[in-house]
Amino acid sequence: MINARSKLGGIHIKINAGRLKQHFEEMSEIGKIGETGICRPAQSDIEKQAFELASKWMKEAGMTVRLDHFGNLIGRLEGKDPEKPVLMLGSHLDSQPYGGRFDGTAGVIAAIEVVTTLTEHGITPDHPIEVISFADEEGWRFNKGLFGSRGILGLLEEGELLRKDKDGITRQQALIDFGCNPNEWKQSVYPPNSIAAYLELHIEQGPVLEKLDQKVGIVTAISGPLWLTVKITGFAGHAGSVPMNNRQDALVGAAEIIVALNEIVKKDPTAPTVGTVGAINVFPNSPNIIPEKVEFTVDLRDIDINRRGLYESKLRECIHKIAEKHLLTFEISEDTNSEPRDCADWIKNLIRKECNEKGIEAPELISGPFHDALIMSYACDYGMIFVRCKDGISHNPAEYASYDDLAIGTDIMYGTVLKMIHHLQPSLTN
Amino acid sequence: MINARSKLGGIHIKINAGRLKQHFEEMSEIGKIGETGICRPAQSDIEKQAFELASKWMKEAGMTVRLDHFGNLIGRLEGKDPEKPVLMLGSHLDSQPYGGRFDGTAGVIAAIEVVTTLTEHGITPDHPIEVISFADEEGWRFNKGLFGSRGILGLLEEGELLRKDKDGITRQQALIDFGCNPNEWKQSVYPPNSIAAYLELHIEQGPVLEKLDQKVGIVTAISGPLWLTVKITGFAGHAGSVPMNNRQDALVGAAEIIVALNEIVKKDPTAPTVGTVGAINVFPNSPNIIPEKVEFTVDLRDIDINRRGLYESKLRECIHKIAEKHLLTFEISEDTNSEPRDCADWIKNLIRKECNEKGIEAPELISGPFHDALIMSYACDYGMIFVRCKDGISHNPAEYASYDDLAIGTDIMYGTVLKMIHHLQPSLTN
Repeated sequence: MINARSKLGGIHIKINAGRLKQHFEEMSEIGKIGETGICRPAQSDIEKQAFELASKWMKEAGMTVRLDHFGNLIGRLEGKDPEKPVLMLGSHLDSQPYGGRFDGTAGVIAAIEVVTTLTEHGITPDHPIEVISFADEEGWRFNKGLFGSRGILGLLEEGELLRKDKDGITRQQALIDFGCNPNEWKQSVYPPNSIAAYLELHIEQGPVLEKLDQKVGIVTAISGPLWLTVKITGFAGHAGSVPMNNRQDALVGAAEIIVALNEIVKKDPTAPTVGTVGAINVFPNSPNIIPEKVEFTVDLRDIDINRRGLYESKLRECIHKIAEKHLLTFEISEDTNSEPRDCADWIKNLIRKECNEKGIEAPELISGPFHDALIMSYACDYGMIFVRCKDGISHNPAEYASYDDLAIGTDIMYGTVLKMIHHLQPSLTN
Repeated sequence: MINARSKLGGIHIKINAGRLKQHFEEMSEIGKIGETGICRPAQSDIEKQAFELASKWMKEAGMTVRLDHFGNLIGRLEGKDPEKPVLMLGSHLDSQPYGGRFDGTAGVIAAIEVVTTLTEHGITPDHPIEVISFADEEGWRFNKGLFGSRGILGLLEEGELLRKDKDGITRQQALIDFGCNPNEWKQSVYPPNSIAAYLELHIEQGPVLEKLDQKVGIVTAISGPLWLTVKITGFAGHAGSVPMNNRQDALVGAAEIIVALNEIVKKDPTAPTVGTVGAINVFPNSPNIIPEKVEFTVDLRDIDINRRGLYESKLRECIHKIAEKHLLTFEISEDTNSEPRDCADWIKNLIRKECNEKGIEAPELISGPFHDALIMSYACDYGMIFVRCKDGISHNPAEYASYDDLAIGTDIMYGTVLKMIHHLQPSLTN
């Protein structure tokens, strides 16, 4: 079963780069849009197909597989001591509606490859290892993401089952249709201290590694995302007859807010703060009716929580002023509010050690995008390995990471997992 | 059959105000939303129901009824000389998606009441009279309105059958489902000089009459509407990782354009120019993806075509600059471009004479909103009677005109039609 040690760009690797590539290619067919794009909505038939394919690979790697009641797919390689806390590896197989082949998918396929390689090498760790494909990391379908990771840690909020997608399907219905039973959630929650550590591989989704000409990076922290929904209400009227100075145009108000957010966030060009209005919906959305209601999302992220707070205050102040100016009313609701979260030093050190042993220079960098790792950080120590992606493009069909880079990233993950196993079982290493 | 002459607020009226009110109340049930709103999409089952009810009333008034191949409902009161050109009365029964009970509906119900009253008085004019409910005046379903009036005058443009609604249904399919045959359009076109004149009653949809405390007004002209669709293309990317100075955010560009349009149009507060972005659609419309494509409508109207042209140039210049600034590309297409159109002096004079005889003060005013009358002006002389509406509100469920005002407006229309009949048959009057 053990593959001959092979080389990739002068680096000895233990994982099977050919199989890894094949897994990517097979998975890329599920939910394919255009030549290179993916649309795999959370809790959809398409995600179900992706889960079936991943399940097959998990079983081939010697894992037992289950779908939990949050819609997470979990493969478990039993440890010598099944009672020991789990070493968890993973990411997500749901994608953006107009997404790429690597975001999320890379972390799941890499984790399966790591366990497959462990099995092929006859390694049975003391601690169980679980590979998880988290449910609805992306969050666009019900406008709230990181669902599966929040679920297993008991961090879901009231009303989440009632959130609706654009077709009016509730999260509850989507879960039931997916084969989950929300009444049984308690069964799927991990008790405190039952997860020893969490490791995730992900494409960078930014331009840093490419600019530094490095294949992989070691994540130091994840930016804290703030997601708001802003609802503006004006008054509809005939676009041909209501005089300009008599209008309460909700879209003019929203447009001024979008422009203001962009200016606030760009004020300090040296700061890594990013602010985005990604989704907007107008009612009644008719060419000759003055818009009465506009709802839009705000995504604000920073590694510095104080600066993010300052920008948020400025934004709220602008919304207030703009609404007053145009005689609009508004509501702001907070969908997500996370502080930046640091990776565990010991895991960063193990990744660095593994890279050093392979002669790979791996710069440290922060993650602007959030990941399920952000949530996992509230339950256990976590680490993340980034793989460079072309032009920093992600959440786009043009998203691209080379199979060579992915193989090297996966091999570093494999080596790191071996080191983490030893770290968690100090009796073996000493 | 003839009703006793009745009085309304001191004014003798010949039409039946009770029946008129009842017709409004019955019609308000079709496509009802909320307490007072209406949603009757063009070429829908709901419009079909409205047509069936109007047909019943038309037949009761002694008219023969047909649905033409553009989806217009036409009732015809035969003239003593069927070969004479038609005196056409009407408006439309389709509504805005979030519309009111009077816009369009008032003109159709009033026209039916006028013919019913003629029949009750045993009057058969020399010229045939037709009451028409024009197909798709509103234009939101396929983003191009005044469909039925353009149709009967042979003014449809290439590609109109291929326009799709938000569910992907083409105009062609909608017409076929509605019982029309686009291959037979030629049959439904009115030859030149076959329409003698056109008269339309409509609620004002603006605040002028209410401010002047007058029940009805005489329209002098209709503002020229310009409808544009602007498509902006940027580049999608992860909202958490693409640095602000590296973005091509199509929505930030669109927002700046919306703000700019509002400022251009408001520059001269004494001008009646109005400019509106009523509909906007974003792709992929996900909270954490930088918008790649934004499409929005522009509705620009003025009674002064030169000023409208100047504002359009300014807007196009702004779009150019803003696109350049954010590295966006854009396309602008023109959906509708009409010049302002004057009402015929002789019809205005007849309306004024009728008002004078009744002791009603009827101010002259322009129409900001367009109507099928705008199109009809290319085929024949036209006139319009406005009825005041509360707070100038229209294209909104809160739209309101009192039944008394509507009855007086309809009675003036009846008297005007009698005068128009005489005008068109000078041998009878002299």
